[in-house]
Amino acid sequence: MSAPICNALVALTLVLAFSVDIRPVMAQSDPPLDAEHSDPVRLGWMTGFPPPPEKLITHPESDYFSFPKLRWTVCHIRELLPTKQVGRGIGAPVPLMYALDDGIDAVRFTPLDGDEPMTWKASLSANYTDGILIIHKDRVVYERYFGCLDEMSQHAAMSMTKSLTGLLAEILVAEGTLDDTAKVATLVPELSHSGFGEATVRQVMDMTTALDYSEDYADPEADIWAYSAAASPLPKPEGYEGPNGYFEYLQTVGQDGVHGQSFGYRTINTDTLGWIISRVTGRNIAELLSERIWSRMGAEQDAYMTIDGKGIPFAGGGLSAGLRDLGRIGLLMLNGGEINGQRLFPEEVVANIRAGGDREAFARAGYATLDGGSYRGMWWIFHNPHGAFAARGVHGQTIYVDPTAGMVIVRFSSFPTASNTKIDPNSLPAYQAVAEYLMRH
Amino acid sequence: MSAPICNALVALTLVLAFSVDIRPVMAQSDPPLDAEHSDPVRLGWMTGFPPPPEKLITHPESDYFSFPKLRWTVCHIRELLPTKQVGRGIGAPVPLMYALDDGIDAVRFTPLDGDEPMTWKASLSANYTDGILIIHKDRVVYERYFGCLDEMSQHAAMSMTKSLTGLLAEILVAEGTLDDTAKVATLVPELSHSGFGEATVRQVMDMTTALDYSEDYADPEADIWAYSAAASPLPKPEGYEGPNGYFEYLQTVGQDGVHGQSFGYRTINTDTLGWIISRVTGRNIAELLSERIWSRMGAEQDAYMTIDGKGIPFAGGGLSAGLRDLGRIGLLMLNGGEINGQRLFPEEVVANIRAGGDREAFARAGYATLDGGSYRGMWWIFHNPHGAFAARGVHGQTIYVDPTAGMVIVRFSSFPTASNTKIDPNSLPAYQAVAEYLMRH
Repeated sequence: MSAPICNALVALTLVLAFSVDIRPVMAQSDPPLDAEHSDPVRLGWMTGFPPPPEKLITHPESDYFSFPKLRWTVCHIRELLPTKQVGRGIGAPVPLMYALDDGIDAVRFTPLDGDEPMTWKASLSANYTDGILIIHKDRVVYERYFGCLDEMSQHAAMSMTKSLTGLLAEILVAEGTLDDTAKVATLVPELSHSGFGEATVRQVMDMTTALDYSEDYADPEADIWAYSAAASPLPKPEGYEGPNGYFEYLQTVGQDGVHGQSFGYRTINTDTLGWIISRVTGRNIAELLSERIWSRMGAEQDAYMTIDGKGIPFAGGGLSAGLRDLGRIGLLMLNGGEINGQRLFPEEVVANIRAGGDREAFARAGYATLDGGSYRGMWWIFHNPHGAFAARGVHGQTIYVDPTAGMVIVRFSSFPTASNTKIDPNSLPAYQAVAEYLMRH
Repeated sequence: MSAPICNALVALTLVLAFSVDIRPVMAQSDPPLDAEHSDPVRLGWMTGFPPPPEKLITHPESDYFSFPKLRWTVCHIRELLPTKQVGRGIGAPVPLMYALDDGIDAVRFTPLDGDEPMTWKASLSANYTDGILIIHKDRVVYERYFGCLDEMSQHAAMSMTKSLTGLLAEILVAEGTLDDTAKVATLVPELSHSGFGEATVRQVMDMTTALDYSEDYADPEADIWAYSAAASPLPKPEGYEGPNGYFEYLQTVGQDGVHGQSFGYRTINTDTLGWIISRVTGRNIAELLSERIWSRMGAEQDAYMTIDGKGIPFAGGGLSAGLRDLGRIGLLMLNGGEINGQRLFPEEVVANIRAGGDREAFARAGYATLDGGSYRGMWWIFHNPHGAFAARGVHGQTIYVDPTAGMVIVRFSSFPTASNTKIDPNSLPAYQAVAEYLMRH
């Protein structure tokens, strides 16, 4: 295999290795196809025996994360990369309860960046929704599938993975297994000389570490490229002398500034948290997620995680899962750790997340659509009147929990651009409108 | 990535692409470690955060199919390669019924190549067993896990995959969807000019095609290498002008001799059968296996299949599955297509397989331990007094069905050498002895 092809392959593996809100659009029409015209079933990706060349999405050179191919890829990560199972176990699933309400389709809201009201139903295609589930008072009131997704398949969770890694960490903190005031270096001595060494576990969990790390994709020397090369599960290029795997890479990251002062959304914090958790528990994140959550919440499907070249799961963005199973995660968060009449973790775990992180530190990061919010245990806290909080991932992924309305919304999407700043205007006010509708009914 | 590394990677991908009874042992101590000393848990493969270099089994250059690493790899194929799910669906599994009988441990038999009797229990470690399940009168009477396997994990089925592909074909034949007397060329015109073109579907199903295809691993020009290069899911080397994927490769295979005269065990027949099945049904083998079998038999676990660079499942050897779920396959075969009180396919499917293939054609292949047998619909028929038949795969995989005893034995193994001629002497007489024991009890 040639160096150029292999290097492209390694570099492009980054498409799964980042999960931040900035990312280059690799091959996108302008304006992009709408949801209907970009439907992956309509476009016929990977159909035929064998699929014709123009329908193939396989190797990285097929540009698998570019829109509209992205809309197929988000349901097929395991067919492109090695993965590790997050097992549900072998018992019977516990079905969700239902009280469907089609009236939700007509709920109207005004997008943050517009004057014209939009219906909930119209927002689904505007947001390139692949799957959406609304739970109210512990019953599913709304469920729709589009594009590549159905009730028996898994979708990339992107950075919602971080919130599950963060949840595991908060559980360990609540149980006393993990001291969130400890310096990272005391738990993972290999990180002593890195920028993480002097940070506390809590600063990592809340992403207030001060790190010398750039995600400027226009800069070929940016750290994100070295991170991606390290994270690739494929053999390293000949002559490659950089780090191999997440854990080796993390040791190379330096400090820049004072920890604890400013929120900085960097995926490498979650990978460090994954290392800390694994060191403390003796389990990799996929195993622990199965043991603590997936095998105990009545899940319908196994989930899975992508891995690096040493079999280490991508704690910062590697999860794919079923829509309803993320609904179960939402129920656990809504109900303080209980599901199906069973407590999976202490109530203080969610209370601690809901209380939020340092709002001043968060404000310094300047997220326009998340003004007044904070970040705690790898969850986004809106600090709005309903006390809502969320897991979020690029291209429109969310688990949105509204404790006041007793509502959970899970959305899988394949929005053409990665940044949620494009999709939030049609989403956050819609969630609020549905919450208010449900509270009236 | 350098050409040598990448080429090795592509070439080594063959370890999953062949499933015949001859194969080079890549790195083996002599004599090999025994089962206890080669236990992958004891050897600590892939443990630690991150695993130390000497414990890593990841890229092909880690030689992942060499003994004793093989003993870890057989449970972790999805962590090494892209895979496609064979979904069980999202309903409740139907648990197997149990009537455990530990007396089986003491059952004695005489190995084919020895004078000294051996106990069943001793045969398990002699055969490097990873999992073994015995079902008698529809109840599990014996179940053990060793090495990398437990009740909640999947093991490589190797060439047992062929028997499932063959089963799908027999179902389609029985339903009238597939004409087994048709020439392959009429169903897959792309194969018109290949050695398969003039063969009948039945000759492909029973592997009596006469093909110009060599699996001499000592010959760098042998066809198996071109097949392996074509089958690799990784990008092709620069300058590679050979076929990409199973289907392109199959078109290059020539004819050598007269179809229908002699049994010749060649994996490419199964891949051709997979193509035929997909062309007739519009489904790939993983989807069809899920639709027809996995989602309807009360399976406990999803299974999965490896795929080529175009997403086509490896019909000849790519399946990994749970032990109990292959027990369910055995029950379906024992009970003529019924399980859990439901009929999944016509009774004639199994009757047709059990009747066997052309015994004279089979005899010409000269299998010493399978003398008098035949091959039908990708199943091995022993034509012994009990009417036993089996799915078989290298390194000791089997689903052994004994209709007279009402017995199914499923075994996953990681025997140091691929060939079942080494493992049959400690296995076939043991199965017979257990059958006789169960018939007395």
